[in-house]
Amino acid sequence: MTEEPARKRRAGGRAGNKARAGTAVIDQMPWRIPVNPDRPTEPLDAEAVQRVHKTAMRILRDIGIEMLNPEAVAHLKAAGCIVNGTNVRFDEEFVMEMVRRAPSSFTITPRNPEREIVLGGKHMVFVNVSSPPNSWDLERGKRSGDFATFKDFMRLTQYFNCIHVAGGYPVEPVDIHPSVRHLDCLYEKLTLTDKVCHAYSLGAERVEDVMEMVRLAGGLTDEEFVAKPRMYTNINSVSPLKHDYPMLDGAMRLAKRGQPVVVTPFTLAGAMAPVTMAGAVALSLAEALSAIALLQYIAPGCPVAIGTFTSNVDMKSGAPAFGTPEYMRATQMTGQLVRFYGVPMRASGVCAANVPDAQSMWETCNSLWSAVQSGTNLVYHAAGWLEGGLIASPEKFVMDCEVLQMIQRYFEEATFATTDEDLAFDAIREVGPNGHYFGVQHTQDRYSTAFYAPFVSDWRNFEAWAADGGIWTPERAHRTYKAILEEFEAPAIDGAALEALQRFVAKRKQEGGAPTDF
Amino acid sequence: MTEEPARKRRAGGRAGNKARAGTAVIDQMPWRIPVNPDRPTEPLDAEAVQRVHKTAMRILRDIGIEMLNPEAVAHLKAAGCIVNGTNVRFDEEFVMEMVRRAPSSFTITPRNPEREIVLGGKHMVFVNVSSPPNSWDLERGKRSGDFATFKDFMRLTQYFNCIHVAGGYPVEPVDIHPSVRHLDCLYEKLTLTDKVCHAYSLGAERVEDVMEMVRLAGGLTDEEFVAKPRMYTNINSVSPLKHDYPMLDGAMRLAKRGQPVVVTPFTLAGAMAPVTMAGAVALSLAEALSAIALLQYIAPGCPVAIGTFTSNVDMKSGAPAFGTPEYMRATQMTGQLVRFYGVPMRASGVCAANVPDAQSMWETCNSLWSAVQSGTNLVYHAAGWLEGGLIASPEKFVMDCEVLQMIQRYFEEATFATTDEDLAFDAIREVGPNGHYFGVQHTQDRYSTAFYAPFVSDWRNFEAWAADGGIWTPERAHRTYKAILEEFEAPAIDGAALEALQRFVAKRKQEGGAPTDF
Repeated sequence: MTEEPARKRRAGGRAGNKARAGTAVIDQMPWRIPVNPDRPTEPLDAEAVQRVHKTAMRILRDIGIEMLNPEAVAHLKAAGCIVNGTNVRFDEEFVMEMVRRAPSSFTITPRNPEREIVLGGKHMVFVNVSSPPNSWDLERGKRSGDFATFKDFMRLTQYFNCIHVAGGYPVEPVDIHPSVRHLDCLYEKLTLTDKVCHAYSLGAERVEDVMEMVRLAGGLTDEEFVAKPRMYTNINSVSPLKHDYPMLDGAMRLAKRGQPVVVTPFTLAGAMAPVTMAGAVALSLAEALSAIALLQYIAPGCPVAIGTFTSNVDMKSGAPAFGTPEYMRATQMTGQLVRFYGVPMRASGVCAANVPDAQSMWETCNSLWSAVQSGTNLVYHAAGWLEGGLIASPEKFVMDCEVLQMIQRYFEEATFATTDEDLAFDAIREVGPNGHYFGVQHTQDRYSTAFYAPFVSDWRNFEAWAADGGIWTPERAHRTYKAILEEFEAPAIDGAALEALQRFVAKRKQEGGAPTDF
Repeated sequence: MTEEPARKRRAGGRAGNKARAGTAVIDQMPWRIPVNPDRPTEPLDAEAVQRVHKTAMRILRDIGIEMLNPEAVAHLKAAGCIVNGTNVRFDEEFVMEMVRRAPSSFTITPRNPEREIVLGGKHMVFVNVSSPPNSWDLERGKRSGDFATFKDFMRLTQYFNCIHVAGGYPVEPVDIHPSVRHLDCLYEKLTLTDKVCHAYSLGAERVEDVMEMVRLAGGLTDEEFVAKPRMYTNINSVSPLKHDYPMLDGAMRLAKRGQPVVVTPFTLAGAMAPVTMAGAVALSLAEALSAIALLQYIAPGCPVAIGTFTSNVDMKSGAPAFGTPEYMRATQMTGQLVRFYGVPMRASGVCAANVPDAQSMWETCNSLWSAVQSGTNLVYHAAGWLEGGLIASPEKFVMDCEVLQMIQRYFEEATFATTDEDLAFDAIREVGPNGHYFGVQHTQDRYSTAFYAPFVSDWRNFEAWAADGGIWTPERAHRTYKAILEEFEAPAIDGAALEALQRFVAKRKQEGGAPTDF
């Protein structure tokens, strides 16, 4: 609730319209919901899919999952599951009956309905980096997250049309007290962006506050809010084989109000999961399905998705690795199983590198391409992630958006269309063996849209690049992010909605916010 | 023919054996011929494949190809093609009859038979960067190619087990006179490496000299040399629609002696090819098939491959771009058509970036993954390429080899196997909800081989990495390449073969080498 004067501007439509129309800093692609036309890469045959599925079912039936939430346990007991204290065992018939209740596809509509996303089918949307405790940039190096940096990342999240979702906190703003952090952060998220928001499942009050703030920012009645998905939460199991209290509590709160829950076990092979990738995937699926069965039991048909965060550790150091060959195969295998279960899928754009250098990009490209290959619908951490999720970097954010735009272009049918115009026989005859294609009408007609136009890649030859300072990519990305922040204008928000949001935040702060353990 | 004293060592078996066993600089993967288990990514349906094919056939029949080589024209006239001066028109029946003569797969056996490669089927091999006029490294910046740098790249080519072919010159050694350059370069290639070699088709004398040198280095009789593929050439058409004299001459010389020819049109969409990718691909295929029809007519069943070098230009500057979305789709479409024609396929690992930074890796990863997705068999420029092929960089070479090793690991069935041992149900039960997988026998049994182990990626956390100097990837790669060169030992070569090779080079130098235009 700082920067009050600047805040006023946001209520006006003009500034918002200008921001939506794009600024001159970069010439970026328009907003769209990408559709992935590729057949997924499927390392498993039908029998192998069954083997992974049956292993997940055996885990659920013979080992069971620790559900550290009495309400969840009570529901599952009523559903006929075998309960021993916190251990719950599920049989296949029940799990499959529950998972069949889940929709294969659904929308989430944020306060700006033009930013509605589709989760499922061949749709693929990208989420900003979420949850690093630290930031790093070329000027200031590595620092603890703070509120100013949080807001800068929100501006980048809004600015880039290829980022569809304002996910979790891009950095944890440790300069805001935890009791009111969610109030300040969501206020910024809901006013600096007009994209789909997320609630951390970290306590009943926080979850309820965030749902209320999303409702108020959208100017919605309670009935309108619950009528369709307006936001979502992502819960992580405590692998192996455990769901903790607040995650299950938040998930159930959202499910009861028709809001989507993404269940993403964090199964690092060799640490919290078997060292073999198929085993890690089976464990991850068992954990995800246990939560989904619970949610479908208490709220039949509620929107859910299965996330994968299966990677491997470095066996020398125990450090997590990302974008590895094993990570790619785990993501592809999870994609096959998630299609078998018939719900949307989440994966990530991740790396282990500490700075936005060459390694960061081969690891991130590996993870992003495996998301494409696995038919992933929701790509977390798609821009800005470094150091295995311990750092958010604005330079990396800008660089990743270049790759995301290339993926969006790669999906466009124009790149592989074979109409007569595309096959261009007449142009080939016209140019013949001695001409050049620059000059012909067939080229001139397509001059401005024929190819992907980059904003941070430098395609000039070495001499032209060197004469212009010889700037390496991270430095170019640094300049781009600074220029974006300078020109940034927040999207429009309805004046009454903004006032309601401000009143709510003030009231909840007066009440002391959410309880903390500190 | 410099460094004579060092040369002697190579004849001995001990140093060679040590080199083959690997050194301590990096812990790399053993030599292997990777097999790509993935189903290719296929943007075209069966009808679209036919449409591209039929367009290539129309180009060959109605427009024709300029064949700037009288011998080639005479052969094609005898074959029944319609000849008008240098313009040759081919009908579909003839082209398809000829292409059906080509083998779908073949081997190439260099002087060390353990380095034999397979081209075709699901096999995929990697070639060093070939033909840049310049080099760039962190210490010296951009420089014209020279012989010392040429030799350093040959050492890297030999050192890395993931590089299967010593292709063209990694840099053009401009300090060696063109009349004898091929003699010195091939001598170094054949003694610093024991991998498959390539001859540039740049004049009859050069081609014949290289074939003879490969024969001598292998200690082969003429009969043994022609009995199976021992080396190869790659020819580029002069797009649009033209094959020049020396390329056709070289191709025919190799084909007559049973040595493989890769035909790789260089079709930049918007410059030498239509601005639409399907049109550029159709033009490229027509050019490739015209040369293959010629070669199969004069040497039925000779080994050939179709290469793709279809990318797009930057429409603002005309500069070539690589690793773009359009490049990826062109490579995938070409893969579909090349499988339709039933011959092996070549693609590349390429980028437009000027230095080994983040951009260089997202572009190179895009091109390498499209090679995987297209079922490519021979990946040119797989390590070391920068600036659209105008620069070879040792740092980039080392970085690319990390990515190539990851692709090799990605191909391993272990990453997606679903045996009971992989599904690890017993380990999951043993660890239960409160344990850790590090300690269990299932993990310990797989400790050293479970995951890809990198040699230039740094997976330590930020603080450990910073305490160790905070070295970015290109600098780490620089140190690695210097260490490799320091420890490098050339592979063993038979003493008699070495002597014969030296005698041949001396004799040909005395004769003045090859004629030049200078």
